[in-house]
Amino acid sequence: MEKAQAKLELQPEGEQDPEAEAAARALLTDLYQFTMAVAYWRAGRAREPAEFELFFRRCPFGSSFALAAGLRDCMRFLRTFRLRPADIKYLASVLPPDTDPEFFEYLQGLDCSGVTIRAQPEGSLAFAHVPLLCVSGPLLLVQILETPLLCLINYARWGLRRRTRASLRAGGPGESGRHAAHSRFLASSSLVATNAARLRLIAGPEKRLLEMGLRRAQGPDGGLTASTYSYLGGFDSSSNVLAGQLRGVPVAGTLAHSFVTSFSGSEQPHAPMLAPASGQGLPRDLSTLAKSWLGKVCECLGLRAEETHPGERAAFVAYALAFPKAFQGLLDSYSVMRSGLPNFLAVALALAELGYRAVGVRLDSGDLLQQAWEIRSIFRKCASRFQVPWLEAVSIAVSNNIDEKVLTRLARKDSEVNLIGIGTSVVTCPLQPSLGCVYKLVSVRGQPCRKLTEDSEKQTLPGTKAAFRLYDPEGAPILDLLQLEEEPAPRAGQELRVWPLDVSGGDCRSLTLTPASLEPLLRVYFHLGQVCEPIPSLAESRTLAQKSLGCLSPSHKRLEHPEPYQVALSEKLHALLKGLVQSNQEGP
Amino acid sequence: MEKAQAKLELQPEGEQDPEAEAAARALLTDLYQFTMAVAYWRAGRAREPAEFELFFRRCPFGSSFALAAGLRDCMRFLRTFRLRPADIKYLASVLPPDTDPEFFEYLQGLDCSGVTIRAQPEGSLAFAHVPLLCVSGPLLLVQILETPLLCLINYARWGLRRRTRASLRAGGPGESGRHAAHSRFLASSSLVATNAARLRLIAGPEKRLLEMGLRRAQGPDGGLTASTYSYLGGFDSSSNVLAGQLRGVPVAGTLAHSFVTSFSGSEQPHAPMLAPASGQGLPRDLSTLAKSWLGKVCECLGLRAEETHPGERAAFVAYALAFPKAFQGLLDSYSVMRSGLPNFLAVALALAELGYRAVGVRLDSGDLLQQAWEIRSIFRKCASRFQVPWLEAVSIAVSNNIDEKVLTRLARKDSEVNLIGIGTSVVTCPLQPSLGCVYKLVSVRGQPCRKLTEDSEKQTLPGTKAAFRLYDPEGAPILDLLQLEEEPAPRAGQELRVWPLDVSGGDCRSLTLTPASLEPLLRVYFHLGQVCEPIPSLAESRTLAQKSLGCLSPSHKRLEHPEPYQVALSEKLHALLKGLVQSNQEGP
Repeated sequence: MEKAQAKLELQPEGEQDPEAEAAARALLTDLYQFTMAVAYWRAGRAREPAEFELFFRRCPFGSSFALAAGLRDCMRFLRTFRLRPADIKYLASVLPPDTDPEFFEYLQGLDCSGVTIRAQPEGSLAFAHVPLLCVSGPLLLVQILETPLLCLINYARWGLRRRTRASLRAGGPGESGRHAAHSRFLASSSLVATNAARLRLIAGPEKRLLEMGLRRAQGPDGGLTASTYSYLGGFDSSSNVLAGQLRGVPVAGTLAHSFVTSFSGSEQPHAPMLAPASGQGLPRDLSTLAKSWLGKVCECLGLRAEETHPGERAAFVAYALAFPKAFQGLLDSYSVMRSGLPNFLAVALALAELGYRAVGVRLDSGDLLQQAWEIRSIFRKCASRFQVPWLEAVSIAVSNNIDEKVLTRLARKDSEVNLIGIGTSVVTCPLQPSLGCVYKLVSVRGQPCRKLTEDSEKQTLPGTKAAFRLYDPEGAPILDLLQLEEEPAPRAGQELRVWPLDVSGGDCRSLTLTPASLEPLLRVYFHLGQVCEPIPSLAESRTLAQKSLGCLSPSHKRLEHPEPYQVALSEKLHALLKGLVQSNQEGP
Repeated sequence: MEKAQAKLELQPEGEQDPEAEAAARALLTDLYQFTMAVAYWRAGRAREPAEFELFFRRCPFGSSFALAAGLRDCMRFLRTFRLRPADIKYLASVLPPDTDPEFFEYLQGLDCSGVTIRAQPEGSLAFAHVPLLCVSGPLLLVQILETPLLCLINYARWGLRRRTRASLRAGGPGESGRHAAHSRFLASSSLVATNAARLRLIAGPEKRLLEMGLRRAQGPDGGLTASTYSYLGGFDSSSNVLAGQLRGVPVAGTLAHSFVTSFSGSEQPHAPMLAPASGQGLPRDLSTLAKSWLGKVCECLGLRAEETHPGERAAFVAYALAFPKAFQGLLDSYSVMRSGLPNFLAVALALAELGYRAVGVRLDSGDLLQQAWEIRSIFRKCASRFQVPWLEAVSIAVSNNIDEKVLTRLARKDSEVNLIGIGTSVVTCPLQPSLGCVYKLVSVRGQPCRKLTEDSEKQTLPGTKAAFRLYDPEGAPILDLLQLEEEPAPRAGQELRVWPLDVSGGDCRSLTLTPASLEPLLRVYFHLGQVCEPIPSLAESRTLAQKSLGCLSPSHKRLEHPEPYQVALSEKLHALLKGLVQSNQEGP
């Protein structure tokens, strides 16, 4: 797994990268990026140095945090960005017919060799308004990159639901701050990794979480992205084989109802002989053996063997013959208690007689918690009755539209569920299915830029910035600080005056604090067209995510009504912002 | 546009298809498909003839209809399906170590040459439980195809929100029927095309609808799918250039705030000379000309020219110089009424003086309907004052989180909005973001199969089927009929006894009706590995969708609480279903 990741990092050109070709689609962008490109070019501004910031305005799902993820996809795109002759020809066919032909010649040479990217590390905690990516380079090019970068980042990332102020506070960390009303009508953006992290927080560290949402994903790479980033956010594995092959996500799987129902039981069992696990002794007919065990199981449980479905048992036998060391049963194709469970036990005990251990059962309907209790109790009964101690601990997996609420119940302390398969609600982020990252111009030719729209929600923070995370003496993050890049970095142990962020430009009180330690948040990953710092492997990023979440105070980590995490501006940045707001109010 | 589509159809091998490589990812599937494959193969059943049906159980968004879409993606996948040596090697590394090595040899020869697909035509109306795809072929293979087909279809398609009965009725079309409670907790699946069709129904036929959600889509092909199928569902165009290049969707675009804010106004205007449209007369300095027009505009509107932003005007001039015949202004980077609008008018009137016509303005914040009224009134005032009649009719485009509710307001009869850009709410289907198609085994070796779980919601209809749509004398569809494939087709003008569908197997009354006309719903598009009927172009499917929707009765088309559309079973299929339910209740 780690090897596959490492290999990607060593391919600066991306030719061997199986995903590079798809990633390299330079026309994956909005047409207006190219109409603007014509206009920048016509105005002689194509190569002016500019910087855009990619950030989100509100954490998703009402959480106070998000996880940074998706950097690798961005690097892959940038490394291979080029307009092929066919792309340019197509553009010429859709741009206005009087577009200067020289513009299309200019496009031929366009690549990312002038682009530099600073970013927050993959898997780290991220908060509203702190840039995830700072993209600097020639104005025309970094403008064109807007849509593909948002498209790549947004799905792997964040959104908005609460109004901005809910994620900001006027006071220090100890004060209660002001909360704003939810803005429910903005059913909007989301992050698979953050979503997965929430589900992991609910499930606790013990339950195994399997992502199985490929069939519910938004197309093939929606599925790939979902599988990759749910793993980063804290899932244990995915059913998506392609995510395993391309991204190194551990894969897992069992069997489906169609397999079970495809057996009627009237089939002649095919090659039913199975040799004992030890290799010693004669092979036995597993089908016959299971049938004889069925009688004993039904007797023990007070069931009628005639009520069990023979096709289901034939399916279990077929599966056990294929995987005698990894037998699993799907119990609810017919009746769980009257058919699925006794059939599973019959096959599991037949295998046991040959020295094999069954590994698990899965339930896909009904009251999952209740059934898991009943099944565990029957496992215990049979383990004791038939002296097969391991049977007691056979893994119980459940699935079927599991969302945060259902998961909360399944994760109860006394739950007997071991593995939880989640599809739809992890890959589609139903709590907040749409996506809210934005990409805003912050400087041109070194001069800070700012959109000063009448809609204060949509205003932006001007200038090229640095960002720092400030920690308390226990190592918990207390605040993210944004400042202008040219300012000296704050120092640990030194008192600092900062301005809690209020994008509306309204009045707010400053506060002073002394960080016990701090770290810069933005690292240069891509410098003038070259990847200059390796992106950690997916598994490393997953570890970082869990570690960062572990340090975050429980009050911020709470899933319902968390205390908002504070983002603040340096004095200088605050002054710049105030100055621009004022000059706009007075007119230019 | 049509050419691009036609080309795809002529490439049976897909080698030249720019999307084929990505589509051909045979490992885009759940691992359990391969564990089951091992077990089918081990049981000697790999090549048994089998049929799966792909269908949805409830129409999305509380609608009574959905649109069939996504067939082309499925054909592309099937045509190119093959496991490469690297895929097989990867599978061997993740399947249990004792998997029989011969299985992997078997996989090497696997392709879709034994697969046949019947499907509803692309763009036609589709209803719950009527198969969208019937996939027949060797059991092992058609099982493996489950996940990729669902992944490809689901995003392009449907979902569930209401409980099944809400979409079924016991009585005939004239009766009121029974409605069940909504099942809100099942926040689930959706269809971009259906979503787009709903938005088109709200907008009415006149307003132009632009899909601009690429940056909010679930990754690159989520974006491509969204752009393609929102066009099919009734949008006019997309901002997504790749969807234009690969799928022939008409593309459109304007300019963004970053373009406007990148100009400070202090720049030296670059090559500001513009020749008159007629080609006769001397070039004029557009920047100077616009400045002089600004004075007149402000005087006419009672505004102060000093309040307008010079950077915004410089941006408009730059855009107009690049596209003198297609000038558009984005009005809300600063103040719409005090800066954006007078700057736009200044540049538009300067262009007018040179014989050019501006084409539009865009608003991206604030009260869009109200502003459009004000802007139109100012356009009229200036058109009359400066004797530029076309100015009155300049297109007003709006965007900014437009959902069904906002659209309803913007589509009012007296609205002055001409073009509506919709992003998030068309591509992410927030009303129902997750997806609900299922893929169920209906026959093996010619024998009907059925999952008879205790969860009646999850039960399936057995047997290989035919499906017909029955029409009333006015050509409105009244009912979809499912029957066994071997039954004779129903005939127009002949009385028919049918059983309204009740998947729970409960009692329901039959009804008799006499269709004025009917049409078979399932066509063979792919026969034994070959595309055997060309899939209509995207534009043709779009036309079919609008035509089919046009025939549907308004009571079914209503977006809130529509009358459910009826699906019914033939006597024979009903009897088979009853028999299987009964035999299961009595035990096998």
